[in-house]
Amino acid sequence: MKIIEGGVCAAKGFKAGAMRCGIRKSQTKKDLAMILSDCECNAAAVYTTNRVKAAPILLTKEHLANGKARAVIVNSGNANACAPFGMENARREAAAAARALGVEAEDVIVASTGVIGQTLNVEAIEEHAGSMEMKYDNSMTAAEAIMTTDTKVKTIAVEFEAGGTVCHMGGICKGSGMIHPNMGTMLAFITTDCAITAEQMQKALLDEARITFNRVTVDGDTSTNDMCALLANGMAGNAEIAAEGADYTAFREALHTITEDLARKIAGDGEGASKLMTCSVSGAADEETAERLAKSICSSSLVKAAMFGSDANWGRVLCAMGYSGAPFDTEAVTVEFASKEGRIAVCEQGRGLDFDENLAKRILSQEEVEIRVTLKEGGGAVTCWGCDLTYDYVKINGDYRS
Amino acid sequence: MKIIEGGVCAAKGFKAGAMRCGIRKSQTKKDLAMILSDCECNAAAVYTTNRVKAAPILLTKEHLANGKARAVIVNSGNANACAPFGMENARREAAAAARALGVEAEDVIVASTGVIGQTLNVEAIEEHAGSMEMKYDNSMTAAEAIMTTDTKVKTIAVEFEAGGTVCHMGGICKGSGMIHPNMGTMLAFITTDCAITAEQMQKALLDEARITFNRVTVDGDTSTNDMCALLANGMAGNAEIAAEGADYTAFREALHTITEDLARKIAGDGEGASKLMTCSVSGAADEETAERLAKSICSSSLVKAAMFGSDANWGRVLCAMGYSGAPFDTEAVTVEFASKEGRIAVCEQGRGLDFDENLAKRILSQEEVEIRVTLKEGGGAVTCWGCDLTYDYVKINGDYRS
Repeated sequence: MKIIEGGVCAAKGFKAGAMRCGIRKSQTKKDLAMILSDCECNAAAVYTTNRVKAAPILLTKEHLANGKARAVIVNSGNANACAPFGMENARREAAAAARALGVEAEDVIVASTGVIGQTLNVEAIEEHAGSMEMKYDNSMTAAEAIMTTDTKVKTIAVEFEAGGTVCHMGGICKGSGMIHPNMGTMLAFITTDCAITAEQMQKALLDEARITFNRVTVDGDTSTNDMCALLANGMAGNAEIAAEGADYTAFREALHTITEDLARKIAGDGEGASKLMTCSVSGAADEETAERLAKSICSSSLVKAAMFGSDANWGRVLCAMGYSGAPFDTEAVTVEFASKEGRIAVCEQGRGLDFDENLAKRILSQEEVEIRVTLKEGGGAVTCWGCDLTYDYVKINGDYRS
Repeated sequence: MKIIEGGVCAAKGFKAGAMRCGIRKSQTKKDLAMILSDCECNAAAVYTTNRVKAAPILLTKEHLANGKARAVIVNSGNANACAPFGMENARREAAAAARALGVEAEDVIVASTGVIGQTLNVEAIEEHAGSMEMKYDNSMTAAEAIMTTDTKVKTIAVEFEAGGTVCHMGGICKGSGMIHPNMGTMLAFITTDCAITAEQMQKALLDEARITFNRVTVDGDTSTNDMCALLANGMAGNAEIAAEGADYTAFREALHTITEDLARKIAGDGEGASKLMTCSVSGAADEETAERLAKSICSSSLVKAAMFGSDANWGRVLCAMGYSGAPFDTEAVTVEFASKEGRIAVCEQGRGLDFDENLAKRILSQEEVEIRVTLKEGGGAVTCWGCDLTYDYVKINGDYRS
């Protein structure tokens, strides 16, 4: 497997396009993107667990009930959640895409991101979607169009082999605020030319989302609109993957590379973030316990603010573990901080160590820092991703609507 | 019942004192306080639920096992949590208070607040506690000494009648960061001259803490050191309250006034807070559901940041309700914002209303704002308190240790 260029257009037979159609107030920012496969795809998706689900989520679930899709339409600027005419407008958005791309409306995945509670300007989509230029090497423009408070375009693609055949898989995503376990306003679209059944795709996507996207936390809020959709058009020509085995494993490895890379990019681009914070917990009683502890650490406002200040305040790490509700022996905790500048142990057996504050500061001043917690309960180990809490987070969210 | 002056010295027979003994680096900030009753008290307390418990919490539990106490010693500047020699130093702190005040060490409540993981400078306490001046009208100085990042002194007292006898009750507390359901670094000390059994006190304190202190949330972190202790010396001379009835009810009302007032003061003085945010949820299926929803709203970084910006972004309120895990009909939600400037409905039946943005801005620009959520499930209703998320929260917590 190797990393390649091309994002959602890296796989054979996928076109993308984007434009400004007028949903956003901005006169320059693109607000509509589409992705189209040359032929029908097997499709799988995972969705937000928020009880309040946006209309496009409900509609996409309906459309993917048969495991088939051909196109994606995504708008930014309006979430079409808790909004008047929500389902009606989501259907009109799907129909507009279907007309523009010459496919069936039932084969269109619809996703929206932006402000909640306002009527979607679906007329703008209907008026302009037909004039969108769809091209085979156009992933970047689509990745840009789905950004909201994101500061960086998020894209990745890989080449891998299944059954001796070269396949490609690539993805784009957006997400920077409202990110939490169980998919906070995160939209991710992954395409592949590998042939695989919808059932196997769904299984792989669920498993990978659980250990990548669902282990990202930025601010503890989970959005109404999150979705990760995966389309496979089979154009690579491999024998269709219909069960576990070497080919399925290769597919999963490719998917893991894509989802972990996008998850890290989302965490590192958390609203206002100045650094990516990785938290690894090992030696926990089991994976569930490890995850609960790691997420509690990554979600703690106090830990996040300390990371912003490059302050080796490990007491807050222990404190966050303590209120997580997960059982562990408080007398057996080791905490280390690490980055490319090195690593430093700050707590052993639940007690503070004398450590070099200058070295700790240098380690924590990097753009990627890691909190490593080791317990002595068992073999449970996980890695979660988050970011620091900064002035800019407050600024961005103090008046998002204006 | 009426509000009076005097804090923890409002009740007969309670002295207080405070000093700078040298635990903090600051050359001016007081860091040690004591409270002393002229005679033995019945005592009750509630503690943090954090799995990582500071040594003074463990020691105080031990000392209050018999329901009796006479004095309180509190230091700020060091939490004595996850610290070397934790239990040993907590015991030495109790012994120092006992020597200074002429009481038994087992009758001393010990509380600490400050940085985690560093050895408590107990020698400074041992050296200086004996010279602390204890006075009958000295609550304010004790209230000041227990402050950490608090910006306001928090104190309240009331006069009430039990069995025809005038009684007094007063409290001081500290708390501004790491405040969350289940007592985040909050220390509260309440004294009364009312005669009441330890059992009845404990019951009343548990019930009141549940609906006041435990409904405050500032940043979702729960501290290792939280404690609320209640001392009753019986010097008012009323017939001892030993069961439910009119006297118990009067006692609970007084206690409710004290704890609710202190809870609101803690929320309004949350780290960096510019305003007190009250969230009322009514019409929920039951009280537990209402509480879960209200706390989810109060804890949401996005809601808190919107309140900072006086932005009527009610979609975030619905979103926070949605990920709370509590069941409710999303189509039956009404959201209003209110303050002394008036009230405004922004969402009905789960859908946005057209509303006057200028009026909403004016309402939310006040120092006390309320989010009112009404459901149609049943009779569950609660009020929770929190604060906005500001630049100053990040600043305060970015480098707390220095």
